[in-house]
Order: sequence, then C-alpha cells, then structure tokens
Amino acid sequence: MPRKEKSKLRIIPLGGIGEIGKNITVLEYAEDIIIVDCGLAFPDEDMLGVDLVIPDISYLEANADRIRGLVLTHGHEDHIGAIPYILRQINPDIYGTKLTLGILKNKLSEHVLPNEPSLNCVSAGDVVKLGQFSVEFIHVNHSIADACCLAITTPQGVVVHSGDFKLDITPIDGEMMNIARLGEIGKKGVLMLMCESTNAERAGFTPSEKTVGKSLEYIFSTNTDKRIVIATFSSNVHRVQQIIDVSSKHGRRVAITGRSMLNIVGAAVELGYMNVPEGVLIDINEIKRYKPEQLTLITTGSQGEPMSALYRMAFSDHSQVSLGYGDLVVLSSSPIPGNEKLVGRIINELTKNGVSVLHDHSVEVHVSGHACREELKLLMALLKPKYFMPVHGEYRHLNANRELALDMGIPERNVFISEVGRVLEIDRVGAGFAGTVPSGRVLVDGYGVGDVGNIVLRDRKHLSQDGIIIVVASVDVDSGLLLSGPDVVSRGFVYVREAEELMEEIRQIAADAICRSLERSHIDRMELKNAVKDDLTKFLYAKTKRKPMVLPVIMNM
Amino acid sequence: MPRKEKSKLRIIPLGGIGEIGKNITVLEYAEDIIIVDCGLAFPDEDMLGVDLVIPDISYLEANADRIRGLVLTHGHEDHIGAIPYILRQINPDIYGTKLTLGILKNKLSEHVLPNEPSLNCVSAGDVVKLGQFSVEFIHVNHSIADACCLAITTPQGVVVHSGDFKLDITPIDGEMMNIARLGEIGKKGVLMLMCESTNAERAGFTPSEKTVGKSLEYIFSTNTDKRIVIATFSSNVHRVQQIIDVSSKHGRRVAITGRSMLNIVGAAVELGYMNVPEGVLIDINEIKRYKPEQLTLITTGSQGEPMSALYRMAFSDHSQVSLGYGDLVVLSSSPIPGNEKLVGRIINELTKNGVSVLHDHSVEVHVSGHACREELKLLMALLKPKYFMPVHGEYRHLNANRELALDMGIPERNVFISEVGRVLEIDRVGAGFAGTVPSGRVLVDGYGVGDVGNIVLRDRKHLSQDGIIIVVASVDVDSGLLLSGPDVVSRGFVYVREAEELMEEIRQIAADAICRSLERSHIDRMELKNAVKDDLTKFLYAKTKRKPMVLPVIMNM
Repeated sequence: MPRKEKSKLRIIPLGGIGEIGKNITVLEYAEDIIIVDCGLAFPDEDMLGVDLVIPDISYLEANADRIRGLVLTHGHEDHIGAIPYILRQINPDIYGTKLTLGILKNKLSEHVLPNEPSLNCVSAGDVVKLGQFSVEFIHVNHSIADACCLAITTPQGVVVHSGDFKLDITPIDGEMMNIARLGEIGKKGVLMLMCESTNAERAGFTPSEKTVGKSLEYIFSTNTDKRIVIATFSSNVHRVQQIIDVSSKHGRRVAITGRSMLNIVGAAVELGYMNVPEGVLIDINEIKRYKPEQLTLITTGSQGEPMSALYRMAFSDHSQVSLGYGDLVVLSSSPIPGNEKLVGRIINELTKNGVSVLHDHSVEVHVSGHACREELKLLMALLKPKYFMPVHGEYRHLNANRELALDMGIPERNVFISEVGRVLEIDRVGAGFAGTVPSGRVLVDGYGVGDVGNIVLRDRKHLSQDGIIIVVASVDVDSGLLLSGPDVVSRGFVYVREAEELMEEIRQIAADAICRSLERSHIDRMELKNAVKDDLTKFLYAKTKRKPMVLPVIMNM
Repeated sequence: MPRKEKSKLRIIPLGGIGEIGKNITVLEYAEDIIIVDCGLAFPDEDMLGVDLVIPDISYLEANADRIRGLVLTHGHEDHIGAIPYILRQINPDIYGTKLTLGILKNKLSEHVLPNEPSLNCVSAGDVVKLGQFSVEFIHVNHSIADACCLAITTPQGVVVHSGDFKLDITPIDGEMMNIARLGEIGKKGVLMLMCESTNAERAGFTPSEKTVGKSLEYIFSTNTDKRIVIATFSSNVHRVQQIIDVSSKHGRRVAITGRSMLNIVGAAVELGYMNVPEGVLIDINEIKRYKPEQLTLITTGSQGEPMSALYRMAFSDHSQVSLGYGDLVVLSSSPIPGNEKLVGRIINELTKNGVSVLHDHSVEVHVSGHACREELKLLMALLKPKYFMPVHGEYRHLNANRELALDMGIPERNVFISEVGRVLEIDRVGAGFAGTVPSGRVLVDGYGVGDVGNIVLRDRKHLSQDGIIIVVASVDVDSGLLLSGPDVVSRGFVYVREAEELMEEIRQIAADAICRSLERSHIDRMELKNAVKDDLTKFLYAKTKRKPMVLPVIMNM
C-alpha cells in the first residue's frame, strides 16, 4: 500500500482563528508541508508600545526541511505582512500573483534579510505542484486586485481555502470571481472548505465596487466648485482607479500623497493594474499651478492614523497642502473597530477649519471587500464540502459562519471551529482534532522581535496607570547604617512641584522602613526593598487611592 | 433707568462644547449667576490612568457669592456627575426633579462633603425664581425618566436650554414631551435656543422607546426555552420597566445584578417611577429556585465594562450566575464610540461558551435617547429663537446642528458655535462673543482631583510605550570619583533575563558617560545626568528603535 493511503492530512491554523489578522495556515501530509499566507495583526489596545503582532512559527522552524512552499492569496498586510520577519528563520519558495508579489517586494526592500527570497509569480488558473500537494489559484473579487482563493489537491481530497473574497458581478477590472471553476471543482467533490468569516454576521450580499463609482460621480457633479480630497486604503487599487476615472471625466488633475499610497499606486501602474489617462496624474508639488476646482487629491489616512497624510493636512502639518473653506474631504472607507475615535478626531478638526466632510454615514462612498451571508452560502452551495472550517475572524464571526454551514446542510460533526495551533486530522475514515503544536503571537516593538512579552506588557500597563516612584538609598548592611538618601524620584504619579508635602511624606516613610530594617540582624537587600515597597504601596493607596509602581534601589557600599 | 436695562446677558459654557460630556453652562446677568447642569466626562484614551474628567469651575469659585442656583435637566452622569466634586468649592442651591435628585443623593452619599448640600425638588411645570432669572422646568422625553428642558426668563428675554431630549409620541410613562408649552413660549418670543447636538448628523426621527418593547415581546415569544439575560444602561428606567413588564407577561421572575442597576432601580421603585407587579422581582440569590426558562436577569455591562456584572458572568467570575448553553444574552444598548472592542470581547466570550447573543445589529433592541434632525428642527420651528447656540457635542455635531438652524432660516450672524470658557454677550442691540473666562478640564485620579496634568500624562504615555531605564550611581563630585554603580534597573523595556548582554551594554555606556563627565572640572549633577541620558537614549534608539524613559539618579556622597 503506498504511503499516501496511510497518512493523514493535517490542517493547522497558526493564526487568524479567534482574532482579526495574522492569517496563516499550515497543511501537512506525510513529509510535505505547505503554508497558506503569512500575515500580521495590529496590536490590541492592551499591547502598549507594540508596533505589530506576527505569528509564532517555531513549529515551521522545527520542520523547515519539510516545507514545500508558501502560497499567497493576496497582498494585504494581514496575509503577507509577517513574511519579512519569518524569512529570518525559514526561507520557503513563495508563490503569488503579480500584484501580490509586487507589494511584497516593496515591503521586503525595507528589511535586511539573511537570504535572497525565492518569489514565484503565478496567474489565476495556474496550478503549482508542491510535494504531494498541488495548488490551483482561482480568481476572486476583493478590495485589492489580483486576489485568489486556492483549491489544494491533497492525497485525501481537495481542500479549498477561500482567502478573502466577495462576489462582485460588476467588478472594476472586468473579471467576476471565477465561480464557474469553483462549481466544476465542487462537482468533482471537495473534502474541506476553509472559509473566511469577516462578514458572516451581515445579511445579504456585499454591494459591488461599482456602487462607489456612482456615489463618486454624484459627489463630483455636485461639488464642481471645490477641491476634492479623497482618503482610502492605498491597496484598494480599484477604488483609486475609479477616483482617477471620475476626476479625468470631470477635467480634474489628480495628485497623490501619503507614502503607502505612492508606493502601491506606483507598483500598480507599473505592473499594469491601473490605467491612468495621459496627463491626469500630477506631482503633489505641482498643485499650485491649478485652481482648486481642477484638482483631486488621493490620500492615505482614512483610518485617522496620526502622521498619515490626511491627519497632517487636517492638523495643518502637511508641507504641500492645507485644507479649509472650499475643500471637500471624502472618507472612502469605514472605520475598523477601534479606530472610530481617531477618525472622529479628523472629522472634527476638518469641520472646525471649514472643510466639508463626507463619510460612510452620509453617502455610500465605501463598500466592503468581504462576502456577506448570501455570498458565503453561495460558495458553500457551489463546493458542497464534506468538512467545513470557518477561518479569519473573532469567535463571534467564526460561529456565525458555522451556523451558515449548518443551515446549508453540513452536518454538525463535520464543522470544526479550530484554534491557533490546534491540529485537525483528516483521513478516509473521518476528521477530528488531534492535539496542538507550538504557536502563539510574537510582538514586534521597534527592531525587537519577541523581546516584549507578558511581563513587559504588564509593567507598561502598570506604569501607564499611575506612574512610578523610585526610592534610592545607599546603606552599609554590615554596620546597619543608612549612608545617604533615601532620594525619591517620581514620574507619571503627581505633579511634583505642587505635591512637595506628599513627596516629603513618601521620603519619610521610605526612610523609616529602611532604618527599621537595618536595625534587625541578618537583613538582606531584598528584605529591605520589600519593606520599602510594602510600606509605601499601603500608604499611597490609603492616601491617594492609586497604586504607582514602587521601585526601591538600595546600594550597599 | 433700572440696572437691568443696562446689563448684558452673558452665556458661558464651562463644558460640553466640542466634547462629549462635562455639560455645564453659566448664565449671568448683572450681579446674578445661575448654572445649568454640572456633569462629568469619561477620559479619552490618551488620559492614561485617569478615572473621570470634571469642569474647571474656578470662575464660579471666584464669583461664588453671585450664584443664585444650580438647575439640573436630568440625572445622567454627564449632567450631574461633577456635583460631588464642585461642592468642595461652592455650595449653590440645587434644583431638580424627584428622580434627578434621588440619583444625585445616591451619588453624594459616597462622598465626604464639607457642607450639607441644599437640594430642592421641583416638578415639570414649576417655575423657580433665582435672582433676576426665573427658570421654568418643561417635560421632555429622554433615556431617563423625569427629564426637563428649561425656559429661562432673563431681563433680556427668554433663553431655552434643551437639555437632552427626544420627542417620543408613545413614551413608556405616558407623557409626551410638552411641545404645547414650548409652542406657547415660542409664540411669546424666544431670545436664544441652546440646543443639544448629539444626533444632529442623523436624519429623520428617533424611534419611540415602545419599539424596543415590540422587539422584546418577539424575543421572549421565540425564546421560551431559554434563560434571558438583558444588559442595558441602569439609568434607563423605562427600558427596565419594559423588560419587567414583558417578563411578567411571560411568567418569568426578574432578578437584578450590578451595583448601579440595583441602586437606580431601588431609587426608581421607591420614588414611584417604576411599577413592579407583586412577586416578579426576586433576589439574585434566589434564582436557583427557578428553572432557567422562568427567569430574566437584568444586568449592567452593556458597554462591555470590565468588572461589570455582565463581564463577570461572561468570564465566569460572577458569584451567582454562570452563563452557557441555554442562555440568551440581549445587549439592549449600542456601543458608545470607543467601546466597540470591549463590547466585542464580551460577545466573543459569550459565544465561545455557547450563549446565544442578540445585539443592536441583529434586532432593534435599542433606541437612542436623543433627537434626530427632524426633531431638532421641530424644536427650532416651535421656538423660533432669535439666536441659536448648538451645545453638547463634538465640533462635527455642533456644526451639523448649526446647519439645521441655517436651514430653518435663522440668519448666519445669529448662530454661535461657542467654546468652553467663551463668553457670549447679548443685549437689546445684538449678540457677540466677548472674551473668555478661566476654564478647562480637571482630571480625577483616585482621590486626587486636579493633581494629574499634562506633564504627568505625558510621562505616563512615555512610560506606557517603551518603559523606563533607571541608572543609579553614587559619586564624589569633588574628588571626581565614581563610588558605586552604576546599577541599571528597567521596567517595561525588555524581558531582562533574555537581554543580559544589552543590559550590560547599557551599564557600560552609563559608566563611560559618568566617568567622562567626572573627569571634567566644574561638573554638576545635572550635567552628569544629562550626559547619561543623552548617551543612553542615542544608543538605545540606534540599537532597538525604541525610546524608553532614561532616568539617571546620581547620589553625591
């Protein structure tokens, strides 16, 4: 009996389950491993000072020789953003479409890598053989061009990974998601569908990207006297294309501002994903040569990010553009949960400066890139998978997607909500969870990858709430003498100049604790420190109802 | 000529303009001052460790002898929450309706006050004479019972302050907002309308509270096999009444959990604002005596607040209730901007535990308490004010309300968007801004009121991002000797046990900086500290791309 008949297919999400972002899935059969996507996540509000979160790939590191390839569904950060970091530990062959690799190259150029990465360009329709796996890239619609879902043929059957998708019947680039091909695959039989869950709580269908074009046309027709500034995600190439098209139609020049917008538009134009009529695009430094009503500006900052081009324009900190009466700002986006206040801050500031602002609530200037409930059900109906695993989302989204699968008639025992690091094994007999592999999150802070963990975060949280009080003294433990100090220094606790009395009380309590401890025999520095810490913590809580970090530094001379 | 003919009416918002919460307005005529409301605000995410924000009332303190009264529109935190704090500086006569004062008394009982506050109960329809002002309380609908707007007769004319309101044609307590009386006042002529702006960006009318009752009826009819747990704002007495009514109708007992919910329901029942059928309300400790499907629980925590009853139930930390399969949780609220992630966290945890969750997106289980655009316009149409000032809201809301006023035909020169502390003067000739008074925000952190300011917040922010590195050394400046150290201690920077090499480098750089400085003549401790700080900051940024706070403590022996 050939080996493949005996082995089980193992599916291991290393991220993207029970969380937004950090999408990465491992498929394993006998000696072969392939990886689908390798994204980053943005830090939660309790990850103070952290820049990015990437998946823990120690399992892949330990099995590096078995990795046959890393296949990418599309070029968003939450699907490719961790690649520059994991390339320090592993160096798999990478497969992706032209725009996906173009964006990845841009990103990799900002990092110093130990090895030259191996990037392999594919097109929708291509099949790549990776060990005993073969991966077919299938065109889908999404809020970035050149996105694919994957049909992965394994010795146990076909696994379809949806990537991120929507069904856009009238897409901007002319190609609808290839549901014909998915129907063919479904007819032949699908073992497992791993399906994104982002919009699984939303009823109906996601509107076509074209609806935004209609809103833009309306906005441009009714604001012919204004300079129009549009903020959107830089990676939404089709959105940017539509803005350029409507501007060109209305005789406006278009200038682009914001680093990532310039990068991605540059890549998209170069690779042929964008079609800019001659003479429409101008440099941001040239805008002075045109009247306001002859101009459209496309900018980053639709999420209210401080330091983004829109933020700087709003707060009069942009070197080429200042906004005021006669300007119209369109936020062609909707705030990602958690960013509402940042976006609100920009809207307030713009309004205060006399700028007119249009956003998601007022006009339909944004559509989602993710499938709503009917589209998710359509995919299930086409593929008729035996097993179903909802992926990409918090638990509420996964569970909503699970309920759709049950509605579609997939038996409850065949639907699996997994966890990061959890192994699902499938063979001819059935499917079931079978243990876990090392997994988790790695925090990136500055150049540091993984050197910030729970203890550091706990300390940052503590420091952020009530600050720190440092007590410094030098003692001679042997003779039991306090030689100098204690000096008390605080940061983030109270405004010291107006709290001299309190600071003196703190000094006195620290001195008492030190002297009391020194009088005892067999005192060590640790006991001394604890005495200072305990006495001060108690005193401060009773007096101020605060718990600053108390840090005694006792030098023994 | 009598004095009143000569004096100007002065209107000074001390909070609630360009911000959510902290509502307080001062009206001044000749020697008389009255105050409308005195609320708190919740801290922004950049006010680390701060519990509450209250208005700076130093202007009122300086003019305490002229204050004729503090009039309250309703009992929400953002209208009465700062009163316990300001009573330490001033002690005005306070006027409010029965429920408003009931909630205020509850609140005051948790504080130690220098004087007995003077609370004066009024009813809608009452007129209170305060110096040259007379204040009429007029019934409005809102998400709390016993709410009023105010018609304030001044020697210059009538000023109407809307308070928070909506027009509910089918309210739960049977009384619609008294638009008849407002129409009468409008007929006689209104000098100025100060109008809330919360929903000024929202089209149409706010639905009646009764619509929530219909949704509840549907939920209770279709979930007869489940225990139903409903989270809502404790102050929404009518919502709680509806939940009790529908529970009673469906033969369920109702238990209440959460401190503020118990407090407010207690007060509302006692004061006759709630009508509970005999035997329906049971103690939370009695729930074991009933089957799940015979129970409704009403709880706090609809905003996802950590430590709220719902949060503790979700995370299995509630002493009487644990939730799982067979439970239905209804979030009868919508998340306040900024709380989306907290609410999401609870939904995820509940779903993970098998609990069914219904929220704002899925069923209409919440309606706003604030007037939408058509209601705001209705108020303007009834009152036909000469001057208009939008209040209660961020700039975007104030501006949207201003645009409504312009639509309603109020001339642009008569519409005033004010600022906190800005004085608007009105006399027979006209109205215009005339300078400012001391004003601002006071931060409450634990027992400390006002001892946390910008420097402390800046330090907390700095500490929260990259932590702190403390360098301690004792030196003899005169002899130029380093006597002991430097010792290096860090918190919130890196996990020290895995960064021994880096910590040693830091120690070495600090030692070099100290020795280099000591070699120079005329060195003082400040220069020594700066040398350590500069060298380490530079080194650390180059090495780690982080900027921890560097705090040298140099003891001169």
